[in-house]
Amino acid sequence: MDADNLASNMNEQAFYERLDSTAVDPPDLFEHFEEHSAGDRTYYLLPDARHEVERGTVVLPDADAVVRGYPSVPRVFVLDPGIPSFFGADARVSVEEKLNGFNVRIAAVGGVLAFTRSGYVCPYTTDRARALLDPAEFFEAYPGAMLCAELIGPETPYTAHDYDDVDSHAVRVFGIRDRETGEPFPVDERRELCERYGFPQPTEFGRGTVDEAVSTAKEAIAELDAAGREGIVVKSEDGREIVKYTTASQTQADLAYAFELPFDYGRDFVFSRVIREGFRAVEFDEDGDRLRERAHDLGESILLPMVETIHTVAAGDRVGERQTVRGDPRAIDELLSHLEGQGLTIEIESDQRDGDQRVVEFLKVSQSTSDRIDYYLDGGTYDE
Amino acid sequence: MDADNLASNMNEQAFYERLDSTAVDPPDLFEHFEEHSAGDRTYYLLPDARHEVERGTVVLPDADAVVRGYPSVPRVFVLDPGIPSFFGADARVSVEEKLNGFNVRIAAVGGVLAFTRSGYVCPYTTDRARALLDPAEFFEAYPGAMLCAELIGPETPYTAHDYDDVDSHAVRVFGIRDRETGEPFPVDERRELCERYGFPQPTEFGRGTVDEAVSTAKEAIAELDAAGREGIVVKSEDGREIVKYTTASQTQADLAYAFELPFDYGRDFVFSRVIREGFRAVEFDEDGDRLRERAHDLGESILLPMVETIHTVAAGDRVGERQTVRGDPRAIDELLSHLEGQGLTIEIESDQRDGDQRVVEFLKVSQSTSDRIDYYLDGGTYDE
Repeated sequence: MDADNLASNMNEQAFYERLDSTAVDPPDLFEHFEEHSAGDRTYYLLPDARHEVERGTVVLPDADAVVRGYPSVPRVFVLDPGIPSFFGADARVSVEEKLNGFNVRIAAVGGVLAFTRSGYVCPYTTDRARALLDPAEFFEAYPGAMLCAELIGPETPYTAHDYDDVDSHAVRVFGIRDRETGEPFPVDERRELCERYGFPQPTEFGRGTVDEAVSTAKEAIAELDAAGREGIVVKSEDGREIVKYTTASQTQADLAYAFELPFDYGRDFVFSRVIREGFRAVEFDEDGDRLRERAHDLGESILLPMVETIHTVAAGDRVGERQTVRGDPRAIDELLSHLEGQGLTIEIESDQRDGDQRVVEFLKVSQSTSDRIDYYLDGGTYDE
Repeated sequence: MDADNLASNMNEQAFYERLDSTAVDPPDLFEHFEEHSAGDRTYYLLPDARHEVERGTVVLPDADAVVRGYPSVPRVFVLDPGIPSFFGADARVSVEEKLNGFNVRIAAVGGVLAFTRSGYVCPYTTDRARALLDPAEFFEAYPGAMLCAELIGPETPYTAHDYDDVDSHAVRVFGIRDRETGEPFPVDERRELCERYGFPQPTEFGRGTVDEAVSTAKEAIAELDAAGREGIVVKSEDGREIVKYTTASQTQADLAYAFELPFDYGRDFVFSRVIREGFRAVEFDEDGDRLRERAHDLGESILLPMVETIHTVAAGDRVGERQTVRGDPRAIDELLSHLEGQGLTIEIESDQRDGDQRVVEFLKVSQSTSDRIDYYLDGGTYDE
């Protein structure tokens, strides 16, 4: 659709070759890209994986740059034999914490920019990445690299998971990759570079054989679950193979989040998460009481937030996702415009200054959940 | 696809006009029909609703007959104001029990045949309908009518819900319609005819204004829920407008059934059912304890059967739906061939004679649930 603009803005044939896809020719690939702009810059993003090019891959013609999407990470439903089976019996792997925030890629492409998982330049995250990581020196040494990071904490525009040690927001760098090929740096090199350049990174629970990784992972998951944290990723030492496993408390938090807005997220969220709990019960539940408790937690995660939302709508109040952001006043302005530009309805609930920072609480209004609930409460019917 | 055969077997233009669809011409409609046979008879069924013709509509050229599909019945999530809002404040309606079995249509189309919801001639149900209803006299008087009925009880090939008063299986006639137009008989006329011809019918809880129907429905649902029965249908007195509402115990039974075979049914079943419980809680739960209990029931219905199935697969056993059928030995043979003809894998678990009847227990094997569970238990990954 935007392929014509793209063609006039760049050397299509050259980008086609650099992206190394399975598309038969440039139009076959570039018809799927969308044109967007950030300030006065135009860029093209791929909203869904196509022709073996990752979702969120970005082409920036003015910088002659490609920023490859972060690959989709498969999940195991059982740690044992999930880990040995995925990597093979002889592999050596690293077990690191998976954080619950949002995935961004940070690259120097005519200035340092931060890209969301879907490939949008996010003005807020760009500002935060520059301030929190100060990556200029790193990009001087590694101009072709991108930092793969999680923006975490209660004051971010997309998620709001609390971490004990993060009052507002923070960044954790969990990967360094060649931004054009997507090729990852090996785990030890990446961790050393983060150390050297002062980039905070996720906890590494251990490194070793796949059998060692199973015990490490089981202990880590028990700890993380008790602390209400998300889970782990296991990576081959070269960084190329990655698999994830998340905690029961994260599944419950996901379901609670989704069923606060059932008609926005419920349908997509529920099935795979109840399946996770089924396999988890078979791997870990020692008796019927523990299983029943897990079932009760599951039911509460689904039903209680939904019922609260129905009551909220019945009372005539708005529902949606409540977020807080803190940062440079201009970056906050740009963020709010950016979100509205994506078609979201934003209601500012509080807007304050804290020193030179601006702190805004806002609601991303969910019209579809409100409308559906209103409709059914008024006696509307559901056709099966 | 079968339109060519259909065209050679019947006066296509005439059937097109009789079906009164929104299709632009006969091929536009008949390309969606499938050819099937029952004994030496050929018939055509519409597997999904198209051009305002109901799913399961059947054309039988050799009898120059149309058997219209049973319409999809909308559901309300709240009884009040669901019932008044659906029918309008001035309507008079009837509240009847909705039974948990399978929906069949019985018509005299060159012999009495019973059609499943999807439009298949079912040899077993045909045999049972003839034996249990003896409808010859009715069809002499009403040759253009069809009986819309539920086959219920523990010994049927498709469902296995227990009713206190049904040891094996039974039929309940809940509708009489013109089989060509689908036009229903009014409620009182239908109930009188069933009475006159000795057709068992579902309980009618009451008839009256929509406000009376709300109280009738609330009482009926409380009773049915306690007895583990499915729910109610409310119909306008002319039989044309129908809406349904089901019990919490039925939702739980559905979820338990679906999550016994999670990779066959779970995804389709789960979302709309948890939504039902959300609205039910808002309409009926008087306090937090009752809500929490409902949440626990919901979680148990989902998780416990799934965990049991995973254990079964882990132990190397087959999973699927277990059914029992009882009837004429030849009809049972035909049924088993019919099911295998539909691509099902049937394992006979017991096959006995009881007087002149044959009683067969069989498993409809679910390969996909077994395969998926095996794969994940072996450490297979799930791509999101």
